[in-house]
Amino acid sequence: MNKQRIFARETLATATHLVLPENTNTLGNLMGGQLLNWMDVISAISAHRHCRRIVVTAAVNNVSFQHPIKLGDIVTIEAKVSRSFNSSMEVYMEVFVEHAQTGERKKCNEANYTFVAVDQIGSAIPVPELVPETEEEKRRFDGALRRRQLKLILAGKMKPDEATELKALFVEPKAFQ
Amino acid sequence: MNKQRIFARETLATATHLVLPENTNTLGNLMGGQLLNWMDVISAISAHRHCRRIVVTAAVNNVSFQHPIKLGDIVTIEAKVSRSFNSSMEVYMEVFVEHAQTGERKKCNEANYTFVAVDQIGSAIPVPELVPETEEEKRRFDGALRRRQLKLILAGKMKPDEATELKALFVEPKAFQ
Amino acid sequence: MNKQRIFARETLATATHLVLPENTNTLGNLMGGQLLNWMDVISAISAHRHCRRIVVTAAVNNVSFQHPIKLGDIVTIEAKVSRSFNSSMEVYMEVFVEHAQTGERKKCNEANYTFVAVDQIGSAIPVPELVPETEEEKRRFDGALRRRQLKLILAGKMKPDEATELKALFVEPKAFQ
Amino acid sequence: MNKQRIFARETLATATHLVLPENTNTLGNLMGGQLLNWMDVISAISAHRHCRRIVVTAAVNNVSFQHPIKLGDIVTIEAKVSRSFNSSMEVYMEVFVEHAQTGERKKCNEANYTFVAVDQIGSAIPVPELVPETEEEKRRFDGALRRRQLKLILAGKMKPDEATELKALFVEPKAFQ
Amino acid sequence: MNKQRIFARETLATATHLVLPENTNTLGNLMGGQLLNWMDVISAISAHRHCRRIVVTAAVNNVSFQHPIKLGDIVTIEAKVSRSFNSSMEVYMEVFVEHAQTGERKKCNEANYTFVAVDQIGSAIPVPELVPETEEEKRRFDGALRRRQLKLILAGKMKPDEATELKALFVEPKAFQ
Amino acid sequence: MNKQRIFARETLATATHLVLPENTNTLGNLMGGQLLNWMDVISAISAHRHCRRIVVTAAVNNVSFQHPIKLGDIVTIEAKVSRSFNSSMEVYMEVFVEHAQTGERKKCNEANYTFVAVDQIGSAIPVPELVPETEEEKRRFDGALRRRQLKLILAGKMKPDEATELKALFVEPKAFQ
Repeated sequence: MNKQRIFARETLATATHLVLPENTNTLGNLMGGQLLNWMDVISAISAHRHCRRIVVTAAVNNVSFQHPIKLGDIVTIEAKVSRSFNSSMEVYMEVFVEHAQTGERKKCNEANYTFVAVDQIGSAIPVPELVPETEEEKRRFDGALRRRQLKLILAGKMKPDEATELKALFVEPKAFQ
Repeated sequence: MNKQRIFARETLATATHLVLPENTNTLGNLMGGQLLNWMDVISAISAHRHCRRIVVTAAVNNVSFQHPIKLGDIVTIEAKVSRSFNSSMEVYMEVFVEHAQTGERKKCNEANYTFVAVDQIGSAIPVPELVPETEEEKRRFDGALRRRQLKLILAGKMKPDEATELKALFVEPKAFQ
Repeated sequence: MNKQRIFARETLATATHLVLPENTNTLGNLMGGQLLNWMDVISAISAHRHCRRIVVTAAVNNVSFQHPIKLGDIVTIEAKVSRSFNSSMEVYMEVFVEHAQTGERKKCNEANYTFVAVDQIGSAIPVPELVPETEEEKRRFDGALRRRQLKLILAGKMKPDEATELKALFVEPKAFQ
Repeated sequence: MNKQRIFARETLATATHLVLPENTNTLGNLMGGQLLNWMDVISAISAHRHCRRIVVTAAVNNVSFQHPIKLGDIVTIEAKVSRSFNSSMEVYMEVFVEHAQTGERKKCNEANYTFVAVDQIGSAIPVPELVPETEEEKRRFDGALRRRQLKLILAGKMKPDEATELKALFVEPKAFQ
Repeated sequence: MNKQRIFARETLATATHLVLPENTNTLGNLMGGQLLNWMDVISAISAHRHCRRIVVTAAVNNVSFQHPIKLGDIVTIEAKVSRSFNSSMEVYMEVFVEHAQTGERKKCNEANYTFVAVDQIGSAIPVPELVPETEEEKRRFDGALRRRQLKLILAGKMKPDEATELKALFVEPKAFQ
Repeated sequence: MNKQRIFARETLATATHLVLPENTNTLGNLMGGQLLNWMDVISAISAHRHCRRIVVTAAVNNVSFQHPIKLGDIVTIEAKVSRSFNSSMEVYMEVFVEHAQTGERKKCNEANYTFVAVDQIGSAIPVPELVPETEEEKRRFDGALRRRQLKLILAGKMKPDEATELKALFVEPKAFQ
């Protein structure tokens, strides 16, 4: 049986939020936890567009908050599946903030969330294969394998010697993304 | 000047939540994003207890969701600072779910969040040193250094050769925690 | 002084939401009021992209709910400024629901909201001119004038005889959009 | 069979809200979308009191926001069915804000929402006839017909020539309410 | 100086809520804490109408939940100041649930909340005198004194011998209300 | 049959909250109603730990708000069952606020909530006996009986002469707790 193939661009999901007082901390900035929540929803939608099944959050990796986001800022989150495995999908997200006067977009955050497709009783089910097209999609596709190997090693489910892709990282330390 | 020292146990913060309909997804389970939000708040409180200053979320690493949490479940999150660096603190969390009839606690999640202490205008400021006491606290203290090295390598801010602690991981692959 | 001109496409704002239990009514469908709220936020962002100033909701016109939206549905709202007047902007929105299995998008709602640009003390200030490019943008640009005339007549601020554009409606009853 | 008749006064529903920080925008005023949401709930209750069946929002027409409502203001919304048709009901609402020191009420908003009564599977069902008693109720009862004709014309479901009531508007342009 | 006098009826405040999924517990009934929250807001509005100053919750007494309130029920809370003291006001509330089909109102809850009027820095300030008119208002006015004496005795701020009104309760045990 | 016995310490439940803008009133302090809601959830969890059955809020007694709680404060609520009766449990709570700089805890609130254990159709069911151990637990255990007698007298369900425990209060007026 040929496995179904989905192009990365078909999984793009975009959320746009306005930072309101109910989303802020005591400094008047967006709460980290609120952003994590918004990212969970939009990356779940991206994963759903890949497999058209119910998806549940399996892991959150490597979220870094580089700039504070302020009350009144417009936040855009772009999510795209970076790679799929048997029944899991890694979603890559970028978070942008728009400058209020000039409209210039500044990237202030990126993250990887992993989802698993499940049936109605919660058992994992297979998902289509992801096909990257652009250079950036291919780079993230490769990085996803290294991130997965790292996760399995850290969980004691893979021996470091078997993590051929990850070892490359220690030889030529290109960034993860 | 001697840097102030805080014992890990002094930073313990505990949150207890009841999973209500407003926290669930379409399967009737706790939304991943809601849990990420609850974890952000309680780990921020733990970091605050370490440094007594305003803290902001800097990174989220290695959150894994191992069991679904159901409507009506009682969720307990225990957060403790695992190690402090110049102005950042890594907080380790465990998430437990209580069995409704027997009261037995099952661990169903763990996570590391990193916070930075800031002054009123948002500049990073130094934090006290963390002193681990129990075996588990010491193990997490050591793991925090490896996780930090990994993050710096991945961000291109450290060469793999300098990450002496992380290399140990590839020789003796004990789990991260 | 030449007034600044903004193309309609520059004002596009897109929001994507997942209908969760907290958004539903007692039938398990999305509450009308929740959708009105989501539309208010994303159309305010669209109006903000037009004028880069603070905007406040001035009016809501002609929202029709044609199909129920269900728990678990993915809702996409696309908002674009249809026309600007002195200090007000009409924003046109379309609401789409994605079929869970096929991914097919069905339009299930459309609406016009009007915003006014204000300064820090809340006084109305001038906004750029909107330039429609596509056939659809031009059609909505024309319709916006008729809708405005209708609103002024209904408020007793314009005489029916002066509403030349609106009269055309009674001669050739094309739809409002 | 005689159709059941309900007096307009029997459908009165009143909501009183305090504007809290969680309801405000970046200017410290009540968000338009929050007010639209509050109006949806209380007008649904009014429509329910008319027909004692499940009601769903079918349309929102002619909401105008005339004065900003501030943090700490007390907002009262009064909703009453203005007219019923086969299975739909138009609800008229007035929004008042109370002056904090004097208690004086100022009307700052009005709106019409339309609801449809449905059975458990969502099919439209007949509703009782509405009987207006006061002068104001009668005026709104008449206006509701014109608003309905306008909506049908705009949707291409009625020819302008048939909209006898609406034509009167262009002859004697009394306000809609 | 004559102290200002306010009639009890002038302090009436009414809230009407629809019980939505986001307000329910795992049995599908209204959460007690949500109702306590709604009662806090509407009784604060009632107290504010009495004194036209900022009011803060000082105490909650004798709330009893007699019947479960279900998803989809319409809840009406009627709040009226029962008596004022130097700077505090006791507010009496009744909670009604409307039968979905018949519209019959059933009282399912009552409560007393106490508020204190404060100035901008939070210091207590005097409030007008409350004037009861109906039999019921007078009965609640008398009961408020006994409840206040009981509270002072329990807090060790009054000797039982001085609580002349409360002693009457042990002689003729009429209900508190 | 021997009734099951639970120690008071086994019912301890702790909630820790950070006061965010969405929880505040117009003075920037924690809303009373929000605190009542948080107390309802954590005391329900405490009662659930006593009986391991579904519990519903039956009454709220004697909540006093002694100090305002500010935006950014860390609030800890400790809940423990003070006594159980046939199918009801009284839960005693203390609310603490942590000083931001020194970490010193100040008690600023206490409250008693009563819960009833119910089966799936909402009928009351028996609960285990509570066994107090410390001096403080015993004192609250005794006080719970007096509070219950007072409630029954006020509801007209017990004659003052029968309330032997409560009469002691008027002889030796120790505080309720």
